[in-house]
Amino acid sequence: MNKAALFEQIKKKRSFLCVGLDTDLKKIPSHLLELDDPVFEFNKQIIDATKDLAVAYKPNLAFYEMLGEEGWRSLQKTLEYIPDEIFTIADAKRGDIGNTSSYYAQTFYDTYKFDSITIAPYMGSDSVKPFLREDKWAIVLGLTSNPGAMDFQNQLLANGLRVYEQVIKESSEWGSDQNMMYVVGATRSTFISDLRKIVPDHFFLVPGVGAQGGSLKDVSDAGLTNECGLLVNSSRAIIYADSGLDFASASRSAGKAVQKEMEEILNGAGLI
Amino acid sequence: MNKAALFEQIKKKRSFLCVGLDTDLKKIPSHLLELDDPVFEFNKQIIDATKDLAVAYKPNLAFYEMLGEEGWRSLQKTLEYIPDEIFTIADAKRGDIGNTSSYYAQTFYDTYKFDSITIAPYMGSDSVKPFLREDKWAIVLGLTSNPGAMDFQNQLLANGLRVYEQVIKESSEWGSDQNMMYVVGATRSTFISDLRKIVPDHFFLVPGVGAQGGSLKDVSDAGLTNECGLLVNSSRAIIYADSGLDFASASRSAGKAVQKEMEEILNGAGLI
Repeated sequence: MNKAALFEQIKKKRSFLCVGLDTDLKKIPSHLLELDDPVFEFNKQIIDATKDLAVAYKPNLAFYEMLGEEGWRSLQKTLEYIPDEIFTIADAKRGDIGNTSSYYAQTFYDTYKFDSITIAPYMGSDSVKPFLREDKWAIVLGLTSNPGAMDFQNQLLANGLRVYEQVIKESSEWGSDQNMMYVVGATRSTFISDLRKIVPDHFFLVPGVGAQGGSLKDVSDAGLTNECGLLVNSSRAIIYADSGLDFASASRSAGKAVQKEMEEILNGAGLI
Repeated sequence: MNKAALFEQIKKKRSFLCVGLDTDLKKIPSHLLELDDPVFEFNKQIIDATKDLAVAYKPNLAFYEMLGEEGWRSLQKTLEYIPDEIFTIADAKRGDIGNTSSYYAQTFYDTYKFDSITIAPYMGSDSVKPFLREDKWAIVLGLTSNPGAMDFQNQLLANGLRVYEQVIKESSEWGSDQNMMYVVGATRSTFISDLRKIVPDHFFLVPGVGAQGGSLKDVSDAGLTNECGLLVNSSRAIIYADSGLDFASASRSAGKAVQKEMEEILNGAGLI
């Protein structure tokens, strides 16, 4: 999917919501556990309930990998079930030497048909470049929203930049705002506005709104571009909104509340 | 496996060789492709031919993942086939927020029974700590051997350290030399001796000897400890030594040559 199509979808749905499919057998409603493929069944109902509200779905690979072959099968069925116009993100945080990264790219882009994959940038350019393709997206970790983000990402370099700023600045030259995005945590919205000086046009994938304490309003004020430029992720708050038989309606309500807030923001910014 | 058992194996086999199982359908001998599970069949023959020479096997996950369910099945069979006394490394370069990392740890330690996993440290402490367990090992990327390693790992920090030195110094406090190792590329042996001042006792997993230009002698001079402290990996030079019917003998010869050199080094250092 290219950037124009993503922005079209955002305008149409009046939303920049990404729903994280962190589907965990320990957390999904217990009545699903009797079914043949509870993970896919859960995802299917979540997708049905939110596909007019979400512009992206982001399965977290750890949750599928831990189930072995069955998990990969559930993942593949999920990807096939997601409507084509919705952007898909393999939250896999891969990154390895060039040859190996090209195999990861094949796996996620060609076998599973993801539009994008999250990348850990520690190994540098040859670990990222194999993920750059037309209409596919390398989503590079910039500043994450977890406590450990401060350990290395926020270290001050001798050149005056923080490590995450250097990562974003340097890596942005390897591709363009048409095939690269950055993960930037919502818990630090002042950082987001500073980053807009380095990469004014790239989309940011923003975790950490809600449960982790970031405010959607602050993030939007800091990061919105004239093509939106933000995908804000919510996982648990939406998919585990309720654990009863009617869990999908609760997910829809939770998603709808976020979408309404996003609609106001997009309206306020004159984007819709 | 604990450190003492690893060192015992090194002394017994007079070797600190790790064989990388980067098993690629495009590169394995063509006669294997007619079999039900060519990847496992190839690995089995390589293991049979090198198990008295290698102290560790390191499957690179990208090569298995790209084959989907079948690849994971081949991986599991491979792990079950590797003799118990041999150290196993999931070269997966994972690393995510704490909850997610704990799922990756479950997958590789509990489902697949690996002794260790390689970790990308960009997300900091909570991405690494879930991999620390008794008799299991987090092998954290320090300084890798690929060209892109210079992009971020080698950046100079305001505190005078390079990023990779900071990563190794800081992360070494999260665990100990009993449950953490570091990936340190062989292409830069002077860096290895400098790192021994920061982590004198940790094992280093060293890629880049041979094909990538590092010298085994230089690496050993720089990095050997009184418990060896080195696992030197070779992948392609051993497993793809020959592409004929008798490929496994060629792999054995290639492995044997490395083991002989390692035996001399261990002898010279008075470790055997």
